[in-house]
Amino acid sequence: MPAPPQVISQYRCFDGTVGFYSHQSSACSSEMKFAVYQPPQAKAEPVPVLYFLSGLTCTEENFITKAGTQQFAAKHGVMLVAPDTSPRNTGIPGEDEDWDFGTGAGFYVDATQEPWSQHYRMYSYITEELPVLIAEHFPVKRDRQGIFGHSMGGHGALVCALRNRDRYLSVSAFAPIVAPMRCAWGQKAFNNYLGANQEQWRAYDASELILRADWQRPILIDQGTADNFLENQLKPQLFEQACTQVGQPLTLRMQSGYDHSYYFIATFMEDHIRHHAEALWA
Amino acid sequence: MPAPPQVISQYRCFDGTVGFYSHQSSACSSEMKFAVYQPPQAKAEPVPVLYFLSGLTCTEENFITKAGTQQFAAKHGVMLVAPDTSPRNTGIPGEDEDWDFGTGAGFYVDATQEPWSQHYRMYSYITEELPVLIAEHFPVKRDRQGIFGHSMGGHGALVCALRNRDRYLSVSAFAPIVAPMRCAWGQKAFNNYLGANQEQWRAYDASELILRADWQRPILIDQGTADNFLENQLKPQLFEQACTQVGQPLTLRMQSGYDHSYYFIATFMEDHIRHHAEALWA
Repeated sequence: MPAPPQVISQYRCFDGTVGFYSHQSSACSSEMKFAVYQPPQAKAEPVPVLYFLSGLTCTEENFITKAGTQQFAAKHGVMLVAPDTSPRNTGIPGEDEDWDFGTGAGFYVDATQEPWSQHYRMYSYITEELPVLIAEHFPVKRDRQGIFGHSMGGHGALVCALRNRDRYLSVSAFAPIVAPMRCAWGQKAFNNYLGANQEQWRAYDASELILRADWQRPILIDQGTADNFLENQLKPQLFEQACTQVGQPLTLRMQSGYDHSYYFIATFMEDHIRHHAEALWA
Repeated sequence: MPAPPQVISQYRCFDGTVGFYSHQSSACSSEMKFAVYQPPQAKAEPVPVLYFLSGLTCTEENFITKAGTQQFAAKHGVMLVAPDTSPRNTGIPGEDEDWDFGTGAGFYVDATQEPWSQHYRMYSYITEELPVLIAEHFPVKRDRQGIFGHSMGGHGALVCALRNRDRYLSVSAFAPIVAPMRCAWGQKAFNNYLGANQEQWRAYDASELILRADWQRPILIDQGTADNFLENQLKPQLFEQACTQVGQPLTLRMQSGYDHSYYFIATFMEDHIRHHAEALWA
């Protein structure tokens, strides 16, 4: 049984509790931080849990302070868990040099390449270690998990769900990187974390995974049309084509005039929480 | 007619627009920044405008990114304006030395003491200059103004409203400093901005002003019981007593377990926007 996470700070919010925590991660061999919102219903009984994976440069704080999600989690009785986006202060040379690689940019993969493979194992952290920790120390229904995210975290959410159909009941994303093998952000990360063999990349590319995932349940994606990263990095049409190819239900909403910011995320958050709550409380 | 404010950035949000602006303030003889949320209704017709004054250390950003207000402003058709909390980079020696005085701590007064009186004229800025600028460059009903704020900004909102019954139709506050003459934050600020003569302080103390304001319209205040500043700085009971003395309607809600953070503010934001919208659209 993992040691309990240390409480960094706690705040009452919408009749529940926002908390920030740290713990020693075995997957990442480093300290990791995460935020949790416990809705008021969790005082009386275990509730479903919904993971949010953040985008490049974010920490465990951005989602909890800017997305306005707690009110809807409180309404629907869903616990929120928002992990950091990478290990930090690992001592790996160059970890802080790029904004789109290393610190703040773990890309939710298990790195196989030195020196990153020592610490950058976010896929195992998110799908295995963290859920065990949460289930041990917070009142959750462990078999009622959903996952969503933004940009790099939208990529992470889709990958985690599509590879673990038995562990996640619902998935959605805001402006996700849907085809990392076919954009510069993904290629840079995968080359460095996973090596040059692109066959190894397919396990972390949602547009590849969906072809054989047999996910079937509805997927919701919101994408702003004024997003600066839309054309070169995000490319939602590639995922849409793959879904069409295999008959996967996808609701891809192109939101006119919205950009890549949390102002966009907050605008459509209520719909996403409803999407997850319907599956998690079904 | 004042020069148009310069656009720093704009973001689509809840079918309206968040914008950050800067302009040369005549009241403060310096550049000032502010944020505006234009609700969708403002595309078709002028709407009422609600000013939010932030607390110590804040800029024009905190409220717009953390309070989750835009959704309710969009619902009720109210424009939000969130100014910075002081002039910045004025060159006054010591302006950046204290977190509770000078930069980020203008206290919404017109300083009379050198060197602050050159720039720290936030009262005139908020009540006179900024409303004129907003009315000239944004689609607002200029005679439908409300004001609210947090902590130091709650103090500012109450003072601005109570001194200008003809200019503001509604007022509310989160964890306001209601009696600055009787707390250390207020005494420090008033001594330095206004001088040692406490008679001059009364014009900026809500618990003094309410005694002769003849405000009469309802006032809403939310205060967390777990707020670290409650006992020594905020003292809502002093304002409550003054309201009782003159028969002023006050809804003071002591919110169990809530602290001084934006998690508290966000939790009760919907009620505050409703409070203002009822008056502004009446």
